[in-house]
Amino acid sequence: MFADSIVRALRSIVGEGNSPLHEPRFAGNEQRYVLECLASTYVSSVGAYVERFEKELAAYTGARRAVAVVNGTAALQVALQLAGVRADDEVIVPALTFVATANAVRYLNAVPHFADSEEATLGLDPRALRDWLKSVAEPTGDAYRNRQTGRRISALVPMHTFGHPCDMDGLFAVAHDYRLALVEDAAESLGSFYKGQHTGTLGLLGTLSFNGNKIVTTGGGGAILTNDESLADHAKHLTTTAKQPHRWDYVHDEVGYNFRMPNLNAALGCAQLEQLPEFLASKRRLFGRYKEAFASVKDVRLMEELSGCESNYWLQTLILSENAAVQRDEVLQAANDAGLMTRPAWRLMHQLAPYQECPRAPLPVAESLAKRLINLPSSAGLA
Amino acid sequence: MFADSIVRALRSIVGEGNSPLHEPRFAGNEQRYVLECLASTYVSSVGAYVERFEKELAAYTGARRAVAVVNGTAALQVALQLAGVRADDEVIVPALTFVATANAVRYLNAVPHFADSEEATLGLDPRALRDWLKSVAEPTGDAYRNRQTGRRISALVPMHTFGHPCDMDGLFAVAHDYRLALVEDAAESLGSFYKGQHTGTLGLLGTLSFNGNKIVTTGGGGAILTNDESLADHAKHLTTTAKQPHRWDYVHDEVGYNFRMPNLNAALGCAQLEQLPEFLASKRRLFGRYKEAFASVKDVRLMEELSGCESNYWLQTLILSENAAVQRDEVLQAANDAGLMTRPAWRLMHQLAPYQECPRAPLPVAESLAKRLINLPSSAGLA
Repeated sequence: MFADSIVRALRSIVGEGNSPLHEPRFAGNEQRYVLECLASTYVSSVGAYVERFEKELAAYTGARRAVAVVNGTAALQVALQLAGVRADDEVIVPALTFVATANAVRYLNAVPHFADSEEATLGLDPRALRDWLKSVAEPTGDAYRNRQTGRRISALVPMHTFGHPCDMDGLFAVAHDYRLALVEDAAESLGSFYKGQHTGTLGLLGTLSFNGNKIVTTGGGGAILTNDESLADHAKHLTTTAKQPHRWDYVHDEVGYNFRMPNLNAALGCAQLEQLPEFLASKRRLFGRYKEAFASVKDVRLMEELSGCESNYWLQTLILSENAAVQRDEVLQAANDAGLMTRPAWRLMHQLAPYQECPRAPLPVAESLAKRLINLPSSAGLA
Repeated sequence: MFADSIVRALRSIVGEGNSPLHEPRFAGNEQRYVLECLASTYVSSVGAYVERFEKELAAYTGARRAVAVVNGTAALQVALQLAGVRADDEVIVPALTFVATANAVRYLNAVPHFADSEEATLGLDPRALRDWLKSVAEPTGDAYRNRQTGRRISALVPMHTFGHPCDMDGLFAVAHDYRLALVEDAAESLGSFYKGQHTGTLGLLGTLSFNGNKIVTTGGGGAILTNDESLADHAKHLTTTAKQPHRWDYVHDEVGYNFRMPNLNAALGCAQLEQLPEFLASKRRLFGRYKEAFASVKDVRLMEELSGCESNYWLQTLILSENAAVQRDEVLQAANDAGLMTRPAWRLMHQLAPYQECPRAPLPVAESLAKRLINLPSSAGLA
C-alpha cells in the first residue's frame, strides 16, 4: 500500500519512536549566553545581544543591515510599510504560504492579491504572474492599478517556501515592469541562497523568522534585512515606538510599534546562529538520506534545490504525483498515527474565511500542490 | 538651591554611585526555570511555562483568566478589539500616558480621544470627563457619538499611572451612562489594588506589561486579564493566529495575530512572579524612605496611595508645586548629571506629531502635571 511504503521509508530514516516535524537543537552556547544575559539584568529592549545578533545576521546573510524584531510577521508588516505599501493598496502574495504573509498586508489595511506558484520552486511563478498582470493591471501615473478593483498594486512578496528560493530573476523582471516594490518573505529560508546571494537580501527589504520551528530559533523573533541604510534606520525607529533619542524626554514622531526583540531572545539567537553551518550540513545530509529512501517509492518526488540555488532544506517536502493525490490523507493519517509527524501544505489563502473575497489570479498549480504536498520530519538532529 | 536639595534627598536614599530609574532583580528561580525551558526544547509558542504563567497571573490578580502575549501594547490592541472597538470609533484615553495606549487604539484604525487627569491619582478624572462628554457626546441608537466628528465613542481606557489606581467607581459611572466599554491599561500596576480588587480585573478586560522596566519582567511580554471565559478564549485564539485546532490542517478563521508569549519569556516570568510579594514590600519601604527624605524639602510632594487603594509604587513620583515647575529641568539636569536617573512625565499625547489632530477635552491638569512631575530611581533593590 502507498501509505505503508511511505511510512516504511520514513521509519528507515528517523529510526524508532516518535518524530516531531522540526525540533530545535540547543547544543552550543545557549545556556551560557542566556545566563550571561540574566546576569547583566539587560533582558529587555536594550542589550548587547540584540546588537550582536543584528551584526551577525548581517554578516552571515551579506545584508548591509539587519534589524531584530519580535517575530517574522511584525518584520514583514514593517518591511511592507517601509516599501511604500499604503492603505487600500494591493500586494501580490502567493496563495501557497503561511497566513502571516497575508496578515502582514492586512495589518497595513492593504489587500492581499493572490498569485500562483510553480511546481519547480513552490514559490510565485513569474510567467503566470506576468500573464495575469497583463490582463488585470493598467498603468496609472507612476504605478499600475488593478482594473477590476481600481486599487493600486504596490508590492510583490515572494516567499521562499520551506527554504527553496523562488525564481528571483523572473520575479524581478515582473516587479520592474509593473513598478512593484519587491519585499522577500524569507521567514523559512535563513541559509538559502539564490545565485550566491542570500534570500531576503535581493529585494528592497527582506524578512526572517526565528520562531521555535525555524532552522534557528530565538523562542519568538524575526528580522528585517536591507542594503539601504536609511530604510534600516527607519525600521529600527519604527520598531522601537518611533521615539527620538533623548536622555529623558519621550517624543514619538510617528505611529511606531513595540516590535523590538528582547535581549533574552537575542542571546539565544546568538548561540543558535553559531551552529547554523552545522544545522545546514545536517539538513543537507537528511535530504540525501530521504532521497535514497524514497528513490524506490513510486508516485513521489522529494523537493530538491534547483541549479543555481542553495536550499536550507528547512522542511523536507514530498510531492505526490497527480494520481496519488487522493491518497494524501491516508499517508498523513498513517504517518501521524505512527508518531511520525507529517503535515500537508497550509490551506491556501483564498480558501480561508478572512481572505475569500480578495482578488486572485487563476491558481491551478497552487491548488494542485496543496493536494499533493507533505512535509516530513526535518529536525537537524535526524542526520 | 531647589535642585540641590532634591539631589541631596535622593542621594541620602540611593547611596553612592549611579542609580537607574528601574532595574529588574533576578534573585529567585530565573536561572533554573530558563535552563529547564532550554532543556525541554520548548522555547517558543507551545510550552508548560506559558500555561503556568497564565494560571499564576490569574490566581494572583483574581481574574478568571489571563492570556499571555508578546507585550503590553499587543495586549491592549487585542483587548480593545474584543471590547468591540471598530475602525473609525473614538476611544477615550488619558493625554498623560505612555504612547502605547494611543498606539493600540490607532492599530485598530480607531481614533484616540484624549481626556484630562486628576492631581490625586494622575489618572483619568471622572468628573472632568463627565462634563466633557455632556458637552460633546450625543446619543445615537445604542451608543453615543462625538457631535463634532460624528464618530461613535465606544470605549474608555483608564491607565493606572506609575501603579496608582484611577478613581474606578467614578469612571465606571461615566462608562455606564455613556455606554462605553471599560478596558483597563494596567501595564504599570501589577500588584496595585482598588478597593481590594486588582487593577486590570475591574473592567471588561484589562492588560498588563512585563517589559524590562516593569515590576515583574519577562524580557518583553504582556497579558490580557478578563473574568469572561469566552472573551479569554477569543483572546487566546486571536493572539495565536486564529488557527483552529487540528492535528495537521492550517485553517485560520479570522485575521489573527502572532502575539503569543514565547515559553522562554514565560519561564522568566514564572520566576519573577514568585518574588512579586518581596518586590512590592521593597517598593513600599522605598516609598517610606523617600517620604521621610522629602518631608523637609519645600514645594514637592511624593505620590502616595489614596485611602482604599493599594499602589505597587512601581515608579516613585515627585510632584513639584506650581511655582517650582520652572525649575523642573534644572532638577532633571542636576540629578541625571549626578548619575541619579530621573525623568519627567511623557510628552502628552496631543503634543506628539501623530496625535495632534485627535479630538480632546480641555487638559489643564494633565498639562500642569506634565510640567511638574519627576520619576525617581525606583528599583526594588534600593530598599
